[in-house]
Amino acid sequence: MNVGLIGIGTVGGGTYKVLTENFQEILHKTGIEIKVAMVADKDIDLAEKIVSSAIPIVGDAFELVESKEIDLVVELIGGTGIAKDLVKQALLNGKHVVTANKALIAMHGEELFAVAEDNNVQLAYEAAVAGGIPIIKALREGLAANKIEWIAGIVNGTTNYILTEMKENNLSFDVALKQAQELGFAEADPTFDIEGVDAAHKITIMASIAFGIPINFDAVFVEGISNLNQKDITYAEELGYRIKLLAIAKSDQESVEIRVHPTLIPEARLVANVSGPMNAVLVKGNMVGPTLYYGAGAGAEPTASAVVADIIDIARQSQLSTKKLIPSLGFMPNKIKQKKLLAIEDVWSEFYLRLTMANKAGLLAKITNIFASHDISIDAMIHKEVQETNQDPDIFLVTSKVQESQINQVIKAIESLPENKDKIIKLRIEELK
Amino acid sequence: MNVGLIGIGTVGGGTYKVLTENFQEILHKTGIEIKVAMVADKDIDLAEKIVSSAIPIVGDAFELVESKEIDLVVELIGGTGIAKDLVKQALLNGKHVVTANKALIAMHGEELFAVAEDNNVQLAYEAAVAGGIPIIKALREGLAANKIEWIAGIVNGTTNYILTEMKENNLSFDVALKQAQELGFAEADPTFDIEGVDAAHKITIMASIAFGIPINFDAVFVEGISNLNQKDITYAEELGYRIKLLAIAKSDQESVEIRVHPTLIPEARLVANVSGPMNAVLVKGNMVGPTLYYGAGAGAEPTASAVVADIIDIARQSQLSTKKLIPSLGFMPNKIKQKKLLAIEDVWSEFYLRLTMANKAGLLAKITNIFASHDISIDAMIHKEVQETNQDPDIFLVTSKVQESQINQVIKAIESLPENKDKIIKLRIEELK
Repeated sequence: MNVGLIGIGTVGGGTYKVLTENFQEILHKTGIEIKVAMVADKDIDLAEKIVSSAIPIVGDAFELVESKEIDLVVELIGGTGIAKDLVKQALLNGKHVVTANKALIAMHGEELFAVAEDNNVQLAYEAAVAGGIPIIKALREGLAANKIEWIAGIVNGTTNYILTEMKENNLSFDVALKQAQELGFAEADPTFDIEGVDAAHKITIMASIAFGIPINFDAVFVEGISNLNQKDITYAEELGYRIKLLAIAKSDQESVEIRVHPTLIPEARLVANVSGPMNAVLVKGNMVGPTLYYGAGAGAEPTASAVVADIIDIARQSQLSTKKLIPSLGFMPNKIKQKKLLAIEDVWSEFYLRLTMANKAGLLAKITNIFASHDISIDAMIHKEVQETNQDPDIFLVTSKVQESQINQVIKAIESLPENKDKIIKLRIEELK
Repeated sequence: MNVGLIGIGTVGGGTYKVLTENFQEILHKTGIEIKVAMVADKDIDLAEKIVSSAIPIVGDAFELVESKEIDLVVELIGGTGIAKDLVKQALLNGKHVVTANKALIAMHGEELFAVAEDNNVQLAYEAAVAGGIPIIKALREGLAANKIEWIAGIVNGTTNYILTEMKENNLSFDVALKQAQELGFAEADPTFDIEGVDAAHKITIMASIAFGIPINFDAVFVEGISNLNQKDITYAEELGYRIKLLAIAKSDQESVEIRVHPTLIPEARLVANVSGPMNAVLVKGNMVGPTLYYGAGAGAEPTASAVVADIIDIARQSQLSTKKLIPSLGFMPNKIKQKKLLAIEDVWSEFYLRLTMANKAGLLAKITNIFASHDISIDAMIHKEVQETNQDPDIFLVTSKVQESQINQVIKAIESLPENKDKIIKLRIEELK
C-alpha cells in the first residue's frame, strides 16, 4: 500500500513518523507493507528536512494526486478550498483518501462520500473528530447495536485547557488564553477554537453518524467561552458543578438538537474531570448505557495515530474486496433521513443564572415571584456577599428544567426591574445521566 | 443472517432484546436482516417466556450447532466444559461464533482461533472483556498504528463496587460484599471476582492483543481484595491515592508483566474516579499517549451490546468475503511471539507499606535505617496516632520505585525487629503516567 502525504506540517510530520517508526509493528498486525511513497508540500525545503531522501517530494499536490504510484492519499492541509479539490480529484482518480479535516467533512462530507462511493474507494476521517480517540469507530462499529440517545463531548483541547486554568489557577479568560498560546495549545488567531466553531464541526459529524441524519453544520447552535467570567466558574463550583465547553447532540423519535456552549456539569461525572488539553466523548446508547472515550484530541502523534488507523483499516479491507465495509456515515446512504432540528429556544435545559441587582428590601420576593408566575421552580439560590465595599451582593441560582424561550422571558422580566444593574448571565446545565 | 442463541439467561435474554428491539436500527446501519432463528436452553420453560413463539427452542444445544438454518452461533452459557465443545463443533460446522466467555478465550482461545481459521469462519469475543466497552475493537483496530506500552484496567465491576462502598461509606469488606450480593453486583459465590481471577482472564486476553504474545493465563500474578483493610483505603486517601483492583499489563522490548492486584492510583487520574460497578480501561500507545475507555462492564444489555456489535461486524464482513478482516488476536498468527514473562518478584513498583509496631524511642530511626541500607528512599511517611487508648500509632509510608524482591527483604528485616507486632501490609502503587 503506497501512501501519498499532502502537507508535512504538524500532523503530516506525525503521520510520517508513525508510518516509519511503527512500520514493523504495523506489518506484524496487518501483513501489509504500508509505505510513504510520495510527499507534497509547498515548502519543499521543510519537507526535505523531515522525510527520507529516498521519498519523492513535490511542490504541487495535484502531481501526487495524479501519480500512478499512489494507492491512498492523506490530506492534511486543512480548510475547504484547495483541500476539497485535492480530495475530490484523488477520489475521482480511484484513490482512497484519509483526512483529518473536520471543516471539510462537516461542510462537504456528503458530496465527497458520494464521489468516493461512485469511484469504489473510501474516504476516511477518524482523525477529524477528537484526534487520537477512536470515536468514529466506536460510533459506527463498537456501538452499532445501539440506538444512540445522546452524545456530549469535550472535543476542543484549547478551550478545555483555558477552562482548566481558569478554574484551577484562578486566571481570567484573557490570561489563560495568552498562556495557552505561549504553550502551543492555542493558535495565534484562536477564534475558531474559543468561539466553538471547531467543536461544532466535530459534533455535527458525530450527530450524523449517531442518528442517521444528514450533516447539518448550519443548524448547530454555537456559543463560545470568550465571555465567560471567572466568577461563574467559582459559583458553579460552589453549586457542585464544573464548567466545560460541551458539544451536545440529542435525538428522540421526531427531533434532534445539536449545540455547543459552556455547560455546567455535575462534578461527580467522569467527563467533568477531564482536564487540560485532553478530549473526551460521552455516548449514551439505548442498550449499553453511558460510555466514555478519552485521550489526546490534538497534537502531531495522537492525530497521526488516528490517520494511520484509517490507513490500516483501508489496507486490511482492500485485501478482501473493493466493496466498502462500513457506510461512511454509519447508516446505509438510502436510510439517512433528516429529522426536525430544534432551534435553541425550543431546547429544554436546567439553567444557571447570575443576577446583578441593587440590594433593596423585597428584592428576593420580586425575583421569586417572577419565576413563580412563569411556573419555573428554583432548585438552588445563593445570595452572596461581595467582600469589597459599595458592591451589591451577587445572586446566583439554578432552575428546574424549562424551555429556553421560557427562561428568556423570565430574564427579560427581571432585567426590567428597577433594581437590575447589569445583563443577567445565563448558562445551561446538563446532568448527563 | 440467522443467529442461534445458546443460553437465554441474563446476557442471552439481553442479546435477544437488542436483536429484536433494535432490529430496524441495525437493518438501517447494515442493510442486513439479523434475526434470532433458534434458541437453545436446558430450561425450555424459561426460554418460552422470553422469546417469541415463532422461534424454535431446543433443549439440546448441539441440535442448534448442527442446524443448517444457523449462520452464526452465540455462546452464552459460560465455563470451559460444554461451552468449549459447542463452540468447537459450531466452528467445525462452518458457523461463525460470538462469545462473551472470558474463561474460554483466556484458557483455550488459541486452539479455538486455529479451528476457526481452518474452517474459514470467525470467533469473536468483544463481550468477554469489559462488557459493553468496545475495547477489543479499540486495541485491534482503533489503536492499531501504535505499539502498546501498557494497559491498566478496572475490569471487574463487583470489586469496584465493593471498593467504592468501602471508601465512600466507610464499610468493611464483609459488609460491602454482602451489600453487593443483595444488589446483584456480586454472585452468591463471589470467589472468582473478589480473588481477581475474572480480571486475570480479561487482562490476559488484552495483553495478548496489545503485545502480540500468546495467551498466558497461567503466568498472571493475581491478588484479590478480600484481605483489604478499610484503614488502608483511608490512609491511601490521605496520601492522595485511591485503591482500585487494577489489571495491569506492561511490555518492553524483551519482557512482559501481567498482574492483577489492589493498587494505589493518584486520585487525579481519571481512572481513579471510576466508581460503582463501572469498568474502565486505560491504554498507553507509543504514539497516541494515554487513552481511556469507560462503560458498563457487565449486565444484560451492556454485554449484549458488545455481543451484537460482533454479530454486526461478522455480518458486514461476510457480505464482502469469507476471508477474515482482522486477525483474532490483532497480530498475524505467524507473528505472535512469546516474550519473557516477569515473575512478580522481578517487577518494579512504588510501594505503600503499613507497619504495626510498639512505639519505642528510636523506632523510626531503626526503620529508616533498614530502608537506607537497602538503598530505598521513602517518599512519604506518616506516623499516625490512633484514637483508642492502649493502641500503638500506625506507621504508613510510600517508597521510591524498587523491585519487589528488594521490598520483600526490607519487610522481612522490619518484621524481625522486636517492636514489630503484626504482618506488614504491602500494596503496590501505579502512577499511570
